[in-house]
Amino acid sequence: MNLDGLLEGLGHATAAALATLVDGDLDGDGDAAITGIEALQWAKGGDLTFIGDARHARLWAESAASVALVDRELDLGDWARPGRAVVRVDDADQAMITVLESLDEVARAGRDAPAVGVHPTASIDPTATVGDDVAIGAGTIVGPRTVIGDGVSIEAGVRIHADCTIGRGVVIHASVVIRERTMVGDGSILHAGVVLGSDGFGYRPSPDGRGIRKIPHLGHVEIGRDVEIGANSCIDRGKFGATSIGDGSKIDNLCQIGHNCRIGRCVVISGLTGIAGSCTVGDGAMIGGGCGIADHLRVGAGARLGARSGLMHDVPDGETWAGFPAHDIRQAMKEFAVIRKLPDWSKKLKELLEPS
Amino acid sequence: MNLDGLLEGLGHATAAALATLVDGDLDGDGDAAITGIEALQWAKGGDLTFIGDARHARLWAESAASVALVDRELDLGDWARPGRAVVRVDDADQAMITVLESLDEVARAGRDAPAVGVHPTASIDPTATVGDDVAIGAGTIVGPRTVIGDGVSIEAGVRIHADCTIGRGVVIHASVVIRERTMVGDGSILHAGVVLGSDGFGYRPSPDGRGIRKIPHLGHVEIGRDVEIGANSCIDRGKFGATSIGDGSKIDNLCQIGHNCRIGRCVVISGLTGIAGSCTVGDGAMIGGGCGIADHLRVGAGARLGARSGLMHDVPDGETWAGFPAHDIRQAMKEFAVIRKLPDWSKKLKELLEPS
Amino acid sequence: MNLDGLLEGLGHATAAALATLVDGDLDGDGDAAITGIEALQWAKGGDLTFIGDARHARLWAESAASVALVDRELDLGDWARPGRAVVRVDDADQAMITVLESLDEVARAGRDAPAVGVHPTASIDPTATVGDDVAIGAGTIVGPRTVIGDGVSIEAGVRIHADCTIGRGVVIHASVVIRERTMVGDGSILHAGVVLGSDGFGYRPSPDGRGIRKIPHLGHVEIGRDVEIGANSCIDRGKFGATSIGDGSKIDNLCQIGHNCRIGRCVVISGLTGIAGSCTVGDGAMIGGGCGIADHLRVGAGARLGARSGLMHDVPDGETWAGFPAHDIRQAMKEFAVIRKLPDWSKKLKELLEPS
Repeated sequence: MNLDGLLEGLGHATAAALATLVDGDLDGDGDAAITGIEALQWAKGGDLTFIGDARHARLWAESAASVALVDRELDLGDWARPGRAVVRVDDADQAMITVLESLDEVARAGRDAPAVGVHPTASIDPTATVGDDVAIGAGTIVGPRTVIGDGVSIEAGVRIHADCTIGRGVVIHASVVIRERTMVGDGSILHAGVVLGSDGFGYRPSPDGRGIRKIPHLGHVEIGRDVEIGANSCIDRGKFGATSIGDGSKIDNLCQIGHNCRIGRCVVISGLTGIAGSCTVGDGAMIGGGCGIADHLRVGAGARLGARSGLMHDVPDGETWAGFPAHDIRQAMKEFAVIRKLPDWSKKLKELLEPS
Repeated sequence: MNLDGLLEGLGHATAAALATLVDGDLDGDGDAAITGIEALQWAKGGDLTFIGDARHARLWAESAASVALVDRELDLGDWARPGRAVVRVDDADQAMITVLESLDEVARAGRDAPAVGVHPTASIDPTATVGDDVAIGAGTIVGPRTVIGDGVSIEAGVRIHADCTIGRGVVIHASVVIRERTMVGDGSILHAGVVLGSDGFGYRPSPDGRGIRKIPHLGHVEIGRDVEIGANSCIDRGKFGATSIGDGSKIDNLCQIGHNCRIGRCVVISGLTGIAGSCTVGDGAMIGGGCGIADHLRVGAGARLGARSGLMHDVPDGETWAGFPAHDIRQAMKEFAVIRKLPDWSKKLKELLEPS
Repeated sequence: MNLDGLLEGLGHATAAALATLVDGDLDGDGDAAITGIEALQWAKGGDLTFIGDARHARLWAESAASVALVDRELDLGDWARPGRAVVRVDDADQAMITVLESLDEVARAGRDAPAVGVHPTASIDPTATVGDDVAIGAGTIVGPRTVIGDGVSIEAGVRIHADCTIGRGVVIHASVVIRERTMVGDGSILHAGVVLGSDGFGYRPSPDGRGIRKIPHLGHVEIGRDVEIGANSCIDRGKFGATSIGDGSKIDNLCQIGHNCRIGRCVVISGLTGIAGSCTVGDGAMIGGGCGIADHLRVGAGARLGARSGLMHDVPDGETWAGFPAHDIRQAMKEFAVIRKLPDWSKKLKELLEPS
């Protein structure tokens, strides 16, 4: 990408300035100019790039990129040319975030968020409480008794129902819907189209046996601090009591968290994952993309689920599971390997095992 | 959860009053006060809880909860203490719904739905017809010739296109989009972010072989009575003719129903399930979460699909299938069991079957 | 479906007129009247239907339908009755699209899209540029410096952020959210609830090891020409640089495309598919419904992934893969077949392989 003056704005448009920003060691041409930022495989002259493993390190010598942030221990081969430089750091990933954060700070000034104040087409219930420095976009509706904390930014077309509490500095993107009694902790981010607090999916056969009886859902949703919820994801309210997401947890796009789930702190859940009702996920667990978790299960603290796992049993703390039905990933990988051989073996197996 | 005066409002804040409400048999202290409602594992003093199986029954004696609604035949052990009571009923699940329904009725009075009438920022086409006691929220748009039945409640930011028919008492949550000619039956509920009647996903190679030609979709969507559709779910219009959902069916969040599907009555479809075009699902079928059904298939009446099934063949009436490709669940379970043993067997199998 | 005068409006309400429209050969009663259009299994008298394979051809003789568009080589048996006709063409599918397109053109006149002009409740930033013949619906917000091309149609409740470029003739349905710097090529269609340019899902452990550090996402989304994106699908912005979708590609409902993916031209991606970050998909690839693709993988040009594939390795050009972990579909099918036999074999295998 072209940085459109962002780097220049920061005054560190050279390799030397970059080294200062990330507290790294400069090697090569300190005057090498940085005019863009790009992944190594797409980088052009003037681009800054990031190298965190040996595979990318081998590509650096032949790359057109001008400057690289590099993990200190990597061997880059014979790469030196005029106008090129590398900046060596302990952790290129973390240094990259530092660079992006400082660019982001510049970018924020020009970002297109609603201005502080309430847009004339927004509608705030007279019993709602709005903090200082709050921005509420066009057409947004805030219901009775809802409390919006200081510094909250709410985009256009958002609907926040009654009796909600939105913490300080929360960012709510466009078309988000927040149902009654939802609590969102300080600093959390809700991306566009998120739905919090919709009715849980609970039914019983009707007493006459001829239909389906809806279980009313009177509970609510509690989102902790510094939580991020991806676009069009849905978190249902509890039947009674809360569906809760712990502090620092991150949920990707198009995920579904069922009623009465209790998701711990710093849990990471990747896209298109569904968690059925009343599950518990321990602190620090990581759940891959496209997983499904049956109702009432427990995923232990620090446990990991490989992408597309289908969980039918509790996962103990710290274990890594995969497959369907999911179980220990080493066992699952061995099974995948044997299954690959079955077609080769099938003729002999048939001769051996089936009566002729 | 704390009931915030709801139970008091109903005047049955004691075990004795509860027994009257659900027509159950009181055992223990009829004056035991109910101040909250919670699942057994989270319940505190003053809470009402529900016990429908032996596993929970064993936990009751040690629980802090004050009152329990209990299936009549369960053995609760030695639980009696002052201020505690149980109410025995034939079916604790159904009694629980009765309790929640009466609370819900009280809650409804304070619910944050649009007031009856058309919000000044809503826009109703002059050729649309709006029934009695209809509530239409801020910024909602209703298109030409659309008919809105009596008692309908439509939230803020909803878009209903031309020539739709919305039945009596339908509830439409915020940010729902309903495309042209959609019909929604009496009493149905559309949760936030639902999209009805978007174009089906149909293409052919273009005649010159160099691109993709879109099949225009002129059909529509027909939703029966008492249907519930979960947040951010999508039901596509037919190519020609209808995509239909039968009376009483319940669809969870983030589901996709393809063009020209015909879903029967009282079908239950759990979250993140996708059904491709032109499928038929019989009355009373139950489809677990995260399933996928290939196009043009038939799921029989009363059939069940286990969670995460991938269906590639028709399912006969009343059968239960699972796995991928899905087939009879008993067979699938046996396969899962044998697969678990394959890694242990693989060394000997290799010796036996592979030329050395 | 009943065509409500559409066919009459076109003046080809007879089999003979249809033959002229699609340049086909008429067989039977040229005066046979067409009053509706329906799939063969649902068709009634007066309906036009389409027959493209032998299975449907066998059903034609007994069908109530009046007129059929038929692949030239198919044997229809003894079907002739007064008031019936068939029109034979080289490709019934393509002819069907031609019929639907001409109906669609009539239907478009009565379609419920916003009128050309800016709705009084819409809000266009003074620095935005709006082309000729643009329609912008109620409550829609367009941010600073965004450029809207000629002939664009934007529905109600859409939020387009700053610095976007929307090409000529683009159609944007209700409740779509388009974040900063997104580019959408000419003629593309974004269905209701689509979110373009939300932050990518990228984190690292925080340096103190006690939390999660968000990677700022400064990149953007680039959508080519004639792309169609289904309802409630999400395409995340790049970390830096673009997430891109090539010309002519079609993405179904509820799909997730991760940050920095590069999707080629004329790629077809079916519903509920998730593609993790930094993947490359070659031109003309076809990805079935419910697939998952792990990050940084490459799907070759013209490759195909069967429905519900879970991809963990690169797919070479032109290959067809399936299963989980996905691999060559012929191998996968053989494995499925052997797995079906394992339960029958398991007792003998156990005797043979396990020490007694």
